[in-house]
Amino acid sequence: MPDISDRAKGYIGSPTRTLSTLLEKAATSKDIISFGGGAPSLAPPKEAIDYITEKMKENPKKYVSYTSTEGLPQERELISEYLKQHENVNIDADQIMIGLGSSENLFCAFEALLNPGDEIILADPSYVGYPGPITSTGARIRRVNTTWEDDFQLDLEKVKEAVNEKTKAMLILTPDNPTGRTLTDENIKGLLDICEDKDLWALTDDVYKDIIFEGKFTNARHLGNEEKIISFVSMSKSCSIPGIRTGYAYGPKEVIFKINEIKQGTTLSPSRISQLAIEAFYKNKGEIKDKFVKEQVIPIYKEKRDILIKALKEHLPEANFSIPKGAFYVFPNMKYYMDKNGADCKAFTNKLLEKSGVAAIPGVFFGPQCDNNIRLTFVTETEERINEGIKRISDLLNG
Amino acid sequence: MPDISDRAKGYIGSPTRTLSTLLEKAATSKDIISFGGGAPSLAPPKEAIDYITEKMKENPKKYVSYTSTEGLPQERELISEYLKQHENVNIDADQIMIGLGSSENLFCAFEALLNPGDEIILADPSYVGYPGPITSTGARIRRVNTTWEDDFQLDLEKVKEAVNEKTKAMLILTPDNPTGRTLTDENIKGLLDICEDKDLWALTDDVYKDIIFEGKFTNARHLGNEEKIISFVSMSKSCSIPGIRTGYAYGPKEVIFKINEIKQGTTLSPSRISQLAIEAFYKNKGEIKDKFVKEQVIPIYKEKRDILIKALKEHLPEANFSIPKGAFYVFPNMKYYMDKNGADCKAFTNKLLEKSGVAAIPGVFFGPQCDNNIRLTFVTETEERINEGIKRISDLLNG
Repeated sequence: MPDISDRAKGYIGSPTRTLSTLLEKAATSKDIISFGGGAPSLAPPKEAIDYITEKMKENPKKYVSYTSTEGLPQERELISEYLKQHENVNIDADQIMIGLGSSENLFCAFEALLNPGDEIILADPSYVGYPGPITSTGARIRRVNTTWEDDFQLDLEKVKEAVNEKTKAMLILTPDNPTGRTLTDENIKGLLDICEDKDLWALTDDVYKDIIFEGKFTNARHLGNEEKIISFVSMSKSCSIPGIRTGYAYGPKEVIFKINEIKQGTTLSPSRISQLAIEAFYKNKGEIKDKFVKEQVIPIYKEKRDILIKALKEHLPEANFSIPKGAFYVFPNMKYYMDKNGADCKAFTNKLLEKSGVAAIPGVFFGPQCDNNIRLTFVTETEERINEGIKRISDLLNG
Repeated sequence: MPDISDRAKGYIGSPTRTLSTLLEKAATSKDIISFGGGAPSLAPPKEAIDYITEKMKENPKKYVSYTSTEGLPQERELISEYLKQHENVNIDADQIMIGLGSSENLFCAFEALLNPGDEIILADPSYVGYPGPITSTGARIRRVNTTWEDDFQLDLEKVKEAVNEKTKAMLILTPDNPTGRTLTDENIKGLLDICEDKDLWALTDDVYKDIIFEGKFTNARHLGNEEKIISFVSMSKSCSIPGIRTGYAYGPKEVIFKINEIKQGTTLSPSRISQLAIEAFYKNKGEIKDKFVKEQVIPIYKEKRDILIKALKEHLPEANFSIPKGAFYVFPNMKYYMDKNGADCKAFTNKLLEKSGVAAIPGVFFGPQCDNNIRLTFVTETEERINEGIKRISDLLNG
């Protein structure tokens, strides 16, 4: 391929995105049981869609117009109020940047903060989408291994060892993708203490903060120095609106201002429909959102989690994992079965798909140490099909 | 401001975006007459909004879901058919990348193509949003002056002189922002011949291609080598849906694939609502779009253009400009009045706003040679207020 910039070579296509075509096919085939995706499986609340569509019909010109790059003041005020009420933090409207899910704001923050040669601390495993926009800046990722035996908590001594004079930032994702673990407040505080001690930016990716089955989310500002914390929120997962592309970031004004300047050259203006979605879910003290999360998201996803865990224990007793306390995923170590089948995790997931019609994601996509793991999403399929899927895997491996 | 990456310093906030807060205020004040914005002033067609909202209500889960990064196959097929029918070009679905307006695709293309030190040819004046995402790659902009006397056509000899061994690409915008000029087919062919001769990428920004009052748009593929042409289409202006953030780019598969990889790290997935908008406007051979453009966009904006031109000629006879054949703007050279008032264009537009309550954009934002110009948008205000606005300027300058 001629004529591609050197910098563009740093962008690595996301392996799960490359799988998305495959997964779209899987979704249309009744025969394939998918543990592969990362999308919420619930329909969004009718009241929210009604609110958005009614506004669009009521005044189409107003509700499909450009807005300022940071998003409209009233929407940012609503977010500010919501954060105050729900997480007891004081964030001014001009510390908030509305964006398309979390991805866009994360990208702009990496651009704003990272120089070539800088380093950023990331857990191994961690979200598959981080490396592309980080390495494209010329920065390097320093991984800190976590294990299922330690419930994927971060070992603070290991983190301290990973920090050096080039370290610029640390990325904290809790609940986690791919493991579903939540970090304890103590662990988060330990990480933020290191950030403060070493003057690092703490980037908290709060995309799954509403989807916690045991325990609760604590805003990082109660545990560390808010002057160096930038938080990223997506409404894609908890509000079941990934295709509306809605999210926001907040942090110190100066960084938000720089992110704004970057965005003027990347996407210019956030979707007005996304901003209607913020209104729909956050108005009246977050009434629609809270009700949806409490009555549907948590109980339904928790039940599915329990079904998958039970099926794994029953049919694949040698799979090692810690029970996820949040998000959509279990991340079992399948070393026993992989060794038996003489396959690495990519060959293993290919075999699952081809021989058993079961889609799973290779663990190594989430970190170099995870080539004995697979990621299983529990929210997509019904109880019957979750059990059927795990049984199919078991039959194949033990057959 | 500490801790900002060197690269981030290359992102220059767009001056018109910085003005957007001011313009939002102007929009709410009856007293301020705004020639400042860049948004369409028509409401989008009711049929399109009905289509989008009905689909959203009919199956919320489906229509607010993630899609693949390039957009759904059926939407790209629809674009392919539309381009075949309307512009007689053969573009496969996998040569098409759906995005948020044109901005996002342009950003990704600059990222994909430009190395630090590379050069890109741009007219002076040209769209204010190009420099930010270009200079952030470390590439340099080489400007080619154009003048109202030559109807802002590009002088091919000057373009050839501007090309050197570092030149990588040329950006072609017709109809133009800020001048409203359309390039003749002959002029475009001349530019594309230079691109072919020097092996440059031709990036054609077709954002205003449907808004042409005299003459018609020719797809660049009929005039040059399609292997090195990438085109950028936004539906924001002609379909009056800027806030839905809808557009697409198309070009050689390999570049579109690289843009796809970049996007996986920037915005991940285009809005599903944007893709519904593509359906709404492009289904049935573009019925809703063609009707809207023919019956509303062209006649209404053309009338407004004529009103502004007449008012300028009557009240500001020393303003020099070529009559725009497309887009939303006139770009008069106000040297006579600026000299008389001892002001550069920024001081001049500030004075217009403060003393006369008229918003206009300083010409220098669009190119370094344009410090005697101002950009006036004619689509925003009514006939009466266009006349009133120009009269106010005249009274101030001659008062």
